[in-house]
Amino acid sequence: MKSNRISVQSFHADDGFVGRVQKLVRDEVLPYQYKILNDALPDVEKSHAIENIRLAAKKLKGGDVKPEEFYGMVFQDSDVAKWIEAAAYALAAGENPELEKAVDEVIALYGASQHEDGYVNSYFTVKAPDRMWTNMREAHELYCAGHMMEAAVAYYEVTGKRSLLDIMAKNADCIYEQFMHNNTRACPGHPEAELALMRLWRATGNEKYKALAKHFIDVRGEAPNYFAEEEANRNWNVWQHTVELDTDYTQSTLPVREQKDAVGHAVRAVYLYTGMADVAKETDDAALLAACRRLWESITKRRMYVTGGIGSTFMGEAFTVDYDLPNDTVYAETCASIGLMFFAKKLLENEHRGEYGDVMERAFYNTVLAGMQLDGKRFFYVNPLEVVPGVSGKAVTHAQDLPTRPQWYACACCPPNVARIVSSFGAYAYSESEDTFFIDLYAGGTVQTQKGIALTCKTDFPHGGSAVYTVSGAAETTIAVRIPAWSEQTVLTVNGEAIDLSAVTRDGYAYITRAWRDGDKLALTLDMTPHLVYASAKIAADSGKACVQRGALVYCAEEVDNGEILPLYIREDAQPRALDFEPETLGGIVPVVVDGCRVQDSGALYSTEKPRFVEKEIRLIPYYTWANRGENQMRVWLPVR
Amino acid sequence: MKSNRISVQSFHADDGFVGRVQKLVRDEVLPYQYKILNDALPDVEKSHAIENIRLAAKKLKGGDVKPEEFYGMVFQDSDVAKWIEAAAYALAAGENPELEKAVDEVIALYGASQHEDGYVNSYFTVKAPDRMWTNMREAHELYCAGHMMEAAVAYYEVTGKRSLLDIMAKNADCIYEQFMHNNTRACPGHPEAELALMRLWRATGNEKYKALAKHFIDVRGEAPNYFAEEEANRNWNVWQHTVELDTDYTQSTLPVREQKDAVGHAVRAVYLYTGMADVAKETDDAALLAACRRLWESITKRRMYVTGGIGSTFMGEAFTVDYDLPNDTVYAETCASIGLMFFAKKLLENEHRGEYGDVMERAFYNTVLAGMQLDGKRFFYVNPLEVVPGVSGKAVTHAQDLPTRPQWYACACCPPNVARIVSSFGAYAYSESEDTFFIDLYAGGTVQTQKGIALTCKTDFPHGGSAVYTVSGAAETTIAVRIPAWSEQTVLTVNGEAIDLSAVTRDGYAYITRAWRDGDKLALTLDMTPHLVYASAKIAADSGKACVQRGALVYCAEEVDNGEILPLYIREDAQPRALDFEPETLGGIVPVVVDGCRVQDSGALYSTEKPRFVEKEIRLIPYYTWANRGENQMRVWLPVR
Repeated sequence: MKSNRISVQSFHADDGFVGRVQKLVRDEVLPYQYKILNDALPDVEKSHAIENIRLAAKKLKGGDVKPEEFYGMVFQDSDVAKWIEAAAYALAAGENPELEKAVDEVIALYGASQHEDGYVNSYFTVKAPDRMWTNMREAHELYCAGHMMEAAVAYYEVTGKRSLLDIMAKNADCIYEQFMHNNTRACPGHPEAELALMRLWRATGNEKYKALAKHFIDVRGEAPNYFAEEEANRNWNVWQHTVELDTDYTQSTLPVREQKDAVGHAVRAVYLYTGMADVAKETDDAALLAACRRLWESITKRRMYVTGGIGSTFMGEAFTVDYDLPNDTVYAETCASIGLMFFAKKLLENEHRGEYGDVMERAFYNTVLAGMQLDGKRFFYVNPLEVVPGVSGKAVTHAQDLPTRPQWYACACCPPNVARIVSSFGAYAYSESEDTFFIDLYAGGTVQTQKGIALTCKTDFPHGGSAVYTVSGAAETTIAVRIPAWSEQTVLTVNGEAIDLSAVTRDGYAYITRAWRDGDKLALTLDMTPHLVYASAKIAADSGKACVQRGALVYCAEEVDNGEILPLYIREDAQPRALDFEPETLGGIVPVVVDGCRVQDSGALYSTEKPRFVEKEIRLIPYYTWANRGENQMRVWLPVR
Repeated sequence: MKSNRISVQSFHADDGFVGRVQKLVRDEVLPYQYKILNDALPDVEKSHAIENIRLAAKKLKGGDVKPEEFYGMVFQDSDVAKWIEAAAYALAAGENPELEKAVDEVIALYGASQHEDGYVNSYFTVKAPDRMWTNMREAHELYCAGHMMEAAVAYYEVTGKRSLLDIMAKNADCIYEQFMHNNTRACPGHPEAELALMRLWRATGNEKYKALAKHFIDVRGEAPNYFAEEEANRNWNVWQHTVELDTDYTQSTLPVREQKDAVGHAVRAVYLYTGMADVAKETDDAALLAACRRLWESITKRRMYVTGGIGSTFMGEAFTVDYDLPNDTVYAETCASIGLMFFAKKLLENEHRGEYGDVMERAFYNTVLAGMQLDGKRFFYVNPLEVVPGVSGKAVTHAQDLPTRPQWYACACCPPNVARIVSSFGAYAYSESEDTFFIDLYAGGTVQTQKGIALTCKTDFPHGGSAVYTVSGAAETTIAVRIPAWSEQTVLTVNGEAIDLSAVTRDGYAYITRAWRDGDKLALTLDMTPHLVYASAKIAADSGKACVQRGALVYCAEEVDNGEILPLYIREDAQPRALDFEPETLGGIVPVVVDGCRVQDSGALYSTEKPRFVEKEIRLIPYYTWANRGENQMRVWLPVR
């Protein structure tokens, strides 16, 4: 059964967990991001993103602008786009005239940088106008355009303003001409335009945009490889040395309908798969949907971290092979887990299966949230599951696995991505088909359905397991709520009466069809017993280890709580125990303790001395709260003894 | 107490373990190597090494030789040098007129390629004569020269022929002029000349060569960094893109006497440290010796694998940081463990400490021997401690960690290095000071001392723990035998009477001073009980694991014997048990079994299902014999349960 996500503005968070992290993004991240885009922070790596657009507009007007005045990466425009998009979602939460004015100004500037034919991209306008459209593999033109399309759609949906939408529709028309008529074999190096064009199609109703998205997906990976051909006919590259063409990196080794394994750059992969799933849904393409399911299986059954992280190596920021999931040299880019959420959501819109929602939840509550410091001021690009200061961030093999979150980056894609997904959380938490309203994630606040009812949710999730939905209005309809696989004993009641879950649950969702009345209460109580989790023996990195999960949260052990982590073991038959909620700790958490032991130091590098252990209760915290108390050792997976 | 190694020809192996591997090298490796050097094998990567020298000689005579006729790396000459050196040692084992004739022919050719001023190097003579001496960091000129010096010394010592010695003395004079007068800040990018010049000094008595070796060591790492300066003044590089100058890679971040940690390219490091230890010994340089000891500690206490492998990553083929010792993405280049043996031996020559000999033994009997297939036909460049087909050799992070030994390489340094050290084993097994004859390694065969006695050793080492030395001749002198730290209960007898080891052992050596008479028997019985070995908790990769060692041999588990290895655990209180010697298995081994268990597959990537185990006795084989029965999973370190 297909469904659609709800609009962002249909959901208004309360001041629970989701509402508070949304507020953090509005209060901290968006303003900070805006300052960065305007180069208003002296101690931070220059962005120059808005200035670049200003320069492009000036040049189009005939102003004297030198190429070297551009500063930043080929994809610098996308930082602006993501900020606009997140700002749009923030506006959905409440009026903010100052923010809206800032957005309108940037949009006007951007519009002024648009060529007559609809082309818009500050890098190529300022620096290399003779090179437009000639380096699909590296130039990120469609990537930037796609992000701005998403921003345009978001802004239009929330504010009703068409300013950016019209700019991007004109841009999309230009792109359509270029790639449906002039250069029909090309597709984007970095997928993004596919999913963005689908959003643009929905917002404008223009079928060309859907056709173009489908086209890009259809031509990708056809032989001979387009990127290789293009490379041979071109004498310049974005990067200083020729990056050897790795067709897996760009998911272009095979046509997408033939692809079996999730390979290559992880963010590119999941953005592509998201676009594929959207096109599959909207064109009823069974072969394409089957490919999506296969790629989903490849990721979630063989190539994903317990924290919902994906991407095993910094080399290519990529997937590697099945079961290769090292904890210390992992990549697990924040953006990649966000993209995994996109992909999960799109699959849900094709067919509601609990596993899609479970993974979307796992990715959000672990890696995505870990990507942001609790105060919203610093971000992880890379999310390790094991950190040892002195090795992590230092050894050449661990250079990207930092023990503490750095500030902004030259390649600053992750913070704005966190901002956008947090701000649009409602669109991930709910979806709707003609006859069913789906609860995919649990979020405190009120959501308007299109069925004549609204639901107000009060929940202590993720630290607690209770979510109570109170109905406003009345309608005879179906509400479907995801029952996570990790909840071993779930209770669902309507107005206090327990539902027989075995009778109503299909593929991870409990379907309650009734004549809902104003004041009805649907109460979900999830099993928040903490459990030891074991990895498949096929994952060499996790041999002999276990980790702890409670609810959706994967836990970890930090040195600050336990002393050195490397000598710690979990006792084989231990039962992890949840302590009381600690509101003052790390923004408010439920710590978990588990019986363990510490091995005594033999003093030698290698020794035949039988190890001696001293009992130790290990204190664990949710993984997303790690690295907020300075540099220290951390492990998600602990050896068992 | 200082000592000197014995000459290679003083030792003649019997047909025990050492003798048989020496014979394998003589019968298989040297002839194969010779064919390769002459491009006589159609299916194998071309070497062109001897042809290059022929071209250089032709060019010097005024022949028409085009630069592009040279084929191979800048260090191609060194392959020839190492073959000559190994051939020399092979000749020590017995006459071989055909081999000697081949060597003489190559030497004559090489001599014909020597310039008037003594310079000799086929790459630069043929391809780039205007670039001689301008790229110390990359060009390997002194590396090639050093290896040929070692070959010259070996050939002279074994055969008495001065042909190559004279060529290389003239070359050394040329190098002396260049670097003691013209370019006095330079030192070799790849250390080798330092240790080679010391050998040349000993063979010729020319003090200039010792002074030059010392000079190269003294100037290395002085500020400003010479390689950086040279780079700035040069517009070409050996490698296609400019390799960013990593001063750690070339051990030139600090002057050597200030160095504390073993860093950079592992082979370069240990070749340098070997040269340092030799110069320290021969110039009584206490600060230099102190640095050698610090670097030894850095390696053996914090940066060495249990198999005596060194070098944690393919990135730079290098050391990384303390305790970073991954088992699957390890480098552990065969050449590096050979270099570690060089370093250990040189330290022994400065002062006899058991730990030097123990590490030399560990490196040889594990990583060095593992580098060669049992039939001598294939070699490992990289020696992993964990291999999973499908990941190893395949994932980009594991690309160098192959599950089976490949054939020859474009960079073929390891096989000839294995050939040289195996063929000169006697020089590592024994050393001699004025009053003491040292037994550093146990090798079946007869050794001539300079004290009027010879020792004939009969031993079943490494599979057995018995070594009986029978004296021929008579002398009042001291025989010192290494008592390995791994032998928990050692018995040493003279003519059947037990020696009180506590009374005679100093720093890992038992010193027996007596009037030795013809027929006296010194019998060593080592403790061959297999033991579980545990790694320091600081080595994150080995958390919760153990490996097995018996005698000098580290053991491993292969899939061919046990089924899939990844699900296997050793039982916590297990006592490994040696089976009987199996002469037909893997060239003859003592297998070890240990109680273990296999975890059942939950079927899921991550599961809260408590793991179920089935008891399983694990069959282990010596690590050096792994990968001789096809591609399969292998682990040295197994989790404990």
